[in-house]
Amino acid sequence: MRTSRLEAFSDGVLAIIITIMVLELKIPAEPTLQALGSSATGFLTYLLSFVYIGIYWNNHHHMFQVVEHVNGTVLWGNLQLLFWLSLLPVSTAWMDQTKFSRTPVVVYGVNLLLAALAYFVLQQAIFRSEGGSGLREALGRDLKGKMSLFLYVSGIALAFVSPWLSLVVFAAVAITWLVPDRRVERYLAAHESGSA
Amino acid sequence: MRTSRLEAFSDGVLAIIITIMVLELKIPAEPTLQALGSSATGFLTYLLSFVYIGIYWNNHHHMFQVVEHVNGTVLWGNLQLLFWLSLLPVSTAWMDQTKFSRTPVVVYGVNLLLAALAYFVLQQAIFRSEGGSGLREALGRDLKGKMSLFLYVSGIALAFVSPWLSLVVFAAVAITWLVPDRRVERYLAAHESGSA
Amino acid sequence: MRTSRLEAFSDGVLAIIITIMVLELKIPAEPTLQALGSSATGFLTYLLSFVYIGIYWNNHHHMFQVVEHVNGTVLWGNLQLLFWLSLLPVSTAWMDQTKFSRTPVVVYGVNLLLAALAYFVLQQAIFRSEGGSGLREALGRDLKGKMSLFLYVSGIALAFVSPWLSLVVFAAVAITWLVPDRRVERYLAAHESGSA
Amino acid sequence: MRTSRLEAFSDGVLAIIITIMVLELKIPAEPTLQALGSSATGFLTYLLSFVYIGIYWNNHHHMFQVVEHVNGTVLWGNLQLLFWLSLLPVSTAWMDQTKFSRTPVVVYGVNLLLAALAYFVLQQAIFRSEGGSGLREALGRDLKGKMSLFLYVSGIALAFVSPWLSLVVFAAVAITWLVPDRRVERYLAAHESGSA
Repeated sequence: MRTSRLEAFSDGVLAIIITIMVLELKIPAEPTLQALGSSATGFLTYLLSFVYIGIYWNNHHHMFQVVEHVNGTVLWGNLQLLFWLSLLPVSTAWMDQTKFSRTPVVVYGVNLLLAALAYFVLQQAIFRSEGGSGLREALGRDLKGKMSLFLYVSGIALAFVSPWLSLVVFAAVAITWLVPDRRVERYLAAHESGSA
Repeated sequence: MRTSRLEAFSDGVLAIIITIMVLELKIPAEPTLQALGSSATGFLTYLLSFVYIGIYWNNHHHMFQVVEHVNGTVLWGNLQLLFWLSLLPVSTAWMDQTKFSRTPVVVYGVNLLLAALAYFVLQQAIFRSEGGSGLREALGRDLKGKMSLFLYVSGIALAFVSPWLSLVVFAAVAITWLVPDRRVERYLAAHESGSA
Repeated sequence: MRTSRLEAFSDGVLAIIITIMVLELKIPAEPTLQALGSSATGFLTYLLSFVYIGIYWNNHHHMFQVVEHVNGTVLWGNLQLLFWLSLLPVSTAWMDQTKFSRTPVVVYGVNLLLAALAYFVLQQAIFRSEGGSGLREALGRDLKGKMSLFLYVSGIALAFVSPWLSLVVFAAVAITWLVPDRRVERYLAAHESGSA
Repeated sequence: MRTSRLEAFSDGVLAIIITIMVLELKIPAEPTLQALGSSATGFLTYLLSFVYIGIYWNNHHHMFQVVEHVNGTVLWGNLQLLFWLSLLPVSTAWMDQTKFSRTPVVVYGVNLLLAALAYFVLQQAIFRSEGGSGLREALGRDLKGKMSLFLYVSGIALAFVSPWLSLVVFAAVAITWLVPDRRVERYLAAHESGSA
């Protein structure tokens, strides 16, 4: 089965997730700068989750550039990734509406962790499928992916010291991923020059 | 008429249905694990409906791989399937908000049954259209599809014993469909090797 | 400019309009059949508007099969059609929530009329653009389109007798359009056999 | 990396933004023309924001017709543009619900200004990327883009005289952009005739 419709469907779901989060933003109650200011944290958590969905879209995009055929396991691996990402608008809104209480921040971190694990499971499913060897070669030991899992766990643990520390860690992980995965670009470049 | 735009439109609608269901999830009222726990059933029904939409997407995807041209009847057969699936977020939310009372569980089962019948009608429309013979050959007697219809009816009837039994049946049907329809893959493989 | 991205964008907008209408459906207040029954009109108006969006998608799909290049005027002609259609979820919800009072039913009819006029304007823009002559030839005198405009106006007028009569007219127009526009199919078939 | 998936994702996000704005429209409280009339400003601001998203879609569409390959910087340049545009439904609703008070109108103007700056940044990222020289040549000195930035700032400043003046300026900018960017069409035409 070709990947084109899987990519189109995933693009659709990610486009909707990234956009409906804005529906959870509360409109300031008064037409004043103070009222806008007290909505500022909602704006910042929206930004953080927007960046995370953007990162997943970028990496997803790169990952499937190396893959040409998918099987049923990869389809479901992809759907479970989309499932965890689809919960991000809800966990973001809960965190914001409770003014960053400990439990919602932990749940937000767990959501990020589960999405990262789902991405990892999807990668493994692709590795094991026909035509997945290219991706395995491109990603190598995937230190960056494993480091992120460790950082999410640390961020969750830090919520018991202070929820703000967790957010600093979650934002830091996002920043390390802003650069799209050059490993895939390098692999594709090497492959093309090799076959030329 | 080619199927590409029908597939793109269906992907769009299914992507939106699967994602807007999350807008029906209530954000827990308190920032506590207890409040999160009492939202757990909402989470599980969301998961069940998410899996159902995922199954329809997978099967839809497979079905149209064997079909190349569609006519007006197929277009409307497809739209009525999307119609019943689009009601799933509402029937899911009703079932959850009433804590799985009998009537909403029955309605949820009827919604699943109507979507399955609509899928059946769509298949028949494709069978009768030009170029639909491939799909008919690939699906054979379609025992699995007919078995599902029977199970939905059983699940609806069991709600009069206990709504929880219904949910067990509905979840069981979903699990039998997690494996995408290999009949189509087998047909395509046989066809390609035959023409080679 | 090629039509592919215009078609993809329109498909996206129409897929969203057809799906978010379901967000306006009220979940029944009680877990009973009576409560569901009192939501039945909402369900029927949802069905009517779903069918209308489906019709526009089908006809839009057919129209752009004959067109290969679009200019700026066609882009905006298309966007104004999407604008009027995007208001359909709101006018549907208003009509339903007021239990089909005269004014909301008139406004719903005006919305349908404006969408039909926008479609007409879009057709004219395509006729006048390069490569639009095929569509003009395919549609001929477009009696069906002109008849619909007349029926919408009649439906709006009938609301001053009884809003229910208006709904009968609006449903009747929808039924006449359930059959996708065979004129385009015939034109394409004739064209292909002519060039063969 | 090819631009096709970036275009598809952007189309998806823009299609959702342009459509979910309608969810912020309040359904009139009474089934009367007066109640509809007092919703008229909401309708007009919806129209203004719809036109703005339409303009961005048109220009985005034109811009990427000249570009064939994108790098990571362009991907993020594109996502920040989508981020600012995704806030437009919220700032539109705030402006409308406060009956065009000064602060919300200023914030709406700032939102338009930030989206325009993001578009400018995206253009610069494309200019600097491989294969971006075509766009640079096509756009020339981009007087129209720079003029818009100046007008947004003027509109924001005029809110301190009267918020209505700001809206006149914002509507005027939209009107100047209704004509899609012919510079790209001219460039493509010249390029094709040159290579012929």
